[in-house]
Amino acid sequence: MADIGARLEEICAGRVLSGDAIGDDYTHDETLGGEPVRPAHVVLPEDADEVAAILKLAAETGTPVTARGSGSGLSGSAVPHPDGILVSFERMNKILEIDTVNHVAVVQPGVTLTELEEATAAVGFVYPVYPGELSASLGGNVNTNAGGMRAIKYGVTRHHVLGLQAALPTGEVIRTGGRFVKASTGYDLTQLIVGSEGTLALVTEAVLKLQPRLAHQATILVPFPDLASVMTAVPKVVGSGLGPLILEYIDALTMGAITYTHDLQLGIPDEIKEKAQAFLVVMLENNSAGRLDEDIETAGELLTELGALDVYSLPGGAARKLVEARENAFYTAKGVGADDIIDTVLPRSSLPEFFTRVLEIAQGNQTLVIGCGHAGDGNVHLAVFQKDPEVRHRVLHELFASGMALGGAISGEHGIGRGKKRHFLELEDPGKIELMRRIKQAFDPQGILNPGVLFD
Amino acid sequence: MADIGARLEEICAGRVLSGDAIGDDYTHDETLGGEPVRPAHVVLPEDADEVAAILKLAAETGTPVTARGSGSGLSGSAVPHPDGILVSFERMNKILEIDTVNHVAVVQPGVTLTELEEATAAVGFVYPVYPGELSASLGGNVNTNAGGMRAIKYGVTRHHVLGLQAALPTGEVIRTGGRFVKASTGYDLTQLIVGSEGTLALVTEAVLKLQPRLAHQATILVPFPDLASVMTAVPKVVGSGLGPLILEYIDALTMGAITYTHDLQLGIPDEIKEKAQAFLVVMLENNSAGRLDEDIETAGELLTELGALDVYSLPGGAARKLVEARENAFYTAKGVGADDIIDTVLPRSSLPEFFTRVLEIAQGNQTLVIGCGHAGDGNVHLAVFQKDPEVRHRVLHELFASGMALGGAISGEHGIGRGKKRHFLELEDPGKIELMRRIKQAFDPQGILNPGVLFD
Repeated sequence: MADIGARLEEICAGRVLSGDAIGDDYTHDETLGGEPVRPAHVVLPEDADEVAAILKLAAETGTPVTARGSGSGLSGSAVPHPDGILVSFERMNKILEIDTVNHVAVVQPGVTLTELEEATAAVGFVYPVYPGELSASLGGNVNTNAGGMRAIKYGVTRHHVLGLQAALPTGEVIRTGGRFVKASTGYDLTQLIVGSEGTLALVTEAVLKLQPRLAHQATILVPFPDLASVMTAVPKVVGSGLGPLILEYIDALTMGAITYTHDLQLGIPDEIKEKAQAFLVVMLENNSAGRLDEDIETAGELLTELGALDVYSLPGGAARKLVEARENAFYTAKGVGADDIIDTVLPRSSLPEFFTRVLEIAQGNQTLVIGCGHAGDGNVHLAVFQKDPEVRHRVLHELFASGMALGGAISGEHGIGRGKKRHFLELEDPGKIELMRRIKQAFDPQGILNPGVLFD
Repeated sequence: MADIGARLEEICAGRVLSGDAIGDDYTHDETLGGEPVRPAHVVLPEDADEVAAILKLAAETGTPVTARGSGSGLSGSAVPHPDGILVSFERMNKILEIDTVNHVAVVQPGVTLTELEEATAAVGFVYPVYPGELSASLGGNVNTNAGGMRAIKYGVTRHHVLGLQAALPTGEVIRTGGRFVKASTGYDLTQLIVGSEGTLALVTEAVLKLQPRLAHQATILVPFPDLASVMTAVPKVVGSGLGPLILEYIDALTMGAITYTHDLQLGIPDEIKEKAQAFLVVMLENNSAGRLDEDIETAGELLTELGALDVYSLPGGAARKLVEARENAFYTAKGVGADDIIDTVLPRSSLPEFFTRVLEIAQGNQTLVIGCGHAGDGNVHLAVFQKDPEVRHRVLHELFASGMALGGAISGEHGIGRGKKRHFLELEDPGKIELMRRIKQAFDPQGILNPGVLFD
């Protein structure tokens, strides 16, 4: 491996770490229970040509390559291979352009969501994809197809990636798509690379669609007697044409945990708290404060008709805090000792039945399972408290199998990576897995990109 | 081939046409100047299993297979192979479900846009993708990634296909995606099949995202002194947050042709007509008539500031007629003798420069090139009047090359098919073409699906 280190040094002089010089940060992402792995080398390229050169070297020597953005992933797809090269995009962190005519941002993969938020806010636009962790890099977001709370209005990362520059494992640098929302010119390589968890290509630049930044936002918190009524209400709110920006459900236990952890005062009287088994958080946005007030009123009336126990308009500060707390629900779950988390997605019509199954599975395995999630999208985040790895695997298997039987998929936005791979390979249609393997082979004939992620 | 006919008859008894029994409709799509081709057999399957059985037979015998929806395509990708099987989806024309909880329609590929429009209107929803030709089938739309006028607000077909059932050339039937807007569970096979022009799989069912149908629409017609001012105005309208449903430009010649052909009275005084070299058509929609009026007012003021010669509010009837006429611009172009049409897409910021190049290319080749298009999306529809095939090829080559040099792609929504294949193979990055070939190989190892489309 010394030889590879020296040759990496030729490509990226002074930007190669090997052996003990590799810090702990490079050995893991945020996956619960994931084992840290120290790679043979960490390399910090500064442009696409360097990335391509690294891949050529890797292909020539059969060395595994793993890409790393901010390391905030939850599925282990940025965890390196012990004999491999970790390509960290921390030096490719420039916003190349905020293009206010075509309404796109052109970014390098190491740019964080926070940085993009600041740059777009300055010119009245917004990159509306809003996963919980704002220190995440755009490169990581592209590779996991990150989602988040605003998907109900704007869609997920996939819907905002208009084009890519990417280095292929065969050593070419390609450009896909462009500064336009549509093309029918051969296969959509952009969409194939989005969500591929670093197994098909290394993204070196992304063209991201921006939206006009609307001036006003308002939030209501709506307690319901049970989860089923929340789930009945959700499609009505979406179908109303009010165009909610956020539509989150939080179950009573999770609400307790996040309000306690974040010391949130939401002004809900005890008598309502006692009856409320589930909450809906509805955020609307508008360019006109007057229209926003009217729409919030309309939403409140609609939800009251649909069985809400009450409707609380949250002042800006409290709303922001609640949304932040919800975003950090993962860390809350981690803090109170969750052993794993999942983010199954299913048709929202199937959520009530799924929750019944979740309860049965939890009770049948003496496991605590609590949750919250993107109710509008059918994306359920569950924290699983079960120390025994075998029982935990069974619980997850049963949860995923139930979700899939109800028309769902294993992950809505976290990805499969290494963490959920066993379940993916056990539960997914073998014909599809085989087809995906052949696609992987088409991109990466030598299997150097992220081996062990998605497939064995 | 007699043997294949008999074996097809075993799969689809009484639904196989061979030889002279094959009507002319099956021999072509709407591509200008395309040569009709009579296939060996036409087969009309009724379900996915029959489609899979046809593909198994084709794979076994090495027989080319072409899929056909309504035959309204403009790139020749539904034109059969002379020794091949044409799979016509006319019997798979059922709307399986309009799901008002998950807000999706589940359709067979032979359902037309008109049929889906009626079914969704009945329950207050809309499938918002709106290509010109409403007799088009959804299967065809999925395979070409059809676009249309409303892409500026809602995106194109790709953005509304949440899941597919498809028969693979290897004989399996797979399901991809589902009744949810996001998943990060392996490669996105749905998005790979969308726009693949029948070369990767045969779509047997599609899950399509619906939107709430807003109650009111209003349209303004805005003349400008030149195309450059239209192009400057477009990003301002999009960036305003008014969320236009339609934002079309029509040049003066095309406007003349469509108003004349459709006998449209738009109430524009002669003095304005004389000065107007380009028109912008802006349609807005809203659930509230009052808000719509306000927004139209705001849009008018904004466009006046941006150099519009005047702003004409079109009454419902006239607006509908104008939009219909614009939709039918292809048939108008065909009617007045256009020899080919293209639908290049490019960053909208590049449009003014592109139009200068178009003029130069047209003049340099003594060719008439007129156009209209989806200004918000940078998608330019040009009709080319040039009888000489060699000169015409050169003109198209130069147009595409100019568009690509400005950051564009050959086709925004019509596809490559057979009609634009030569240009695609001449102009596209060979590394990308090679990668696409390997992806094709991953799906279709024997190359039975639509040989001659996209690749040679």
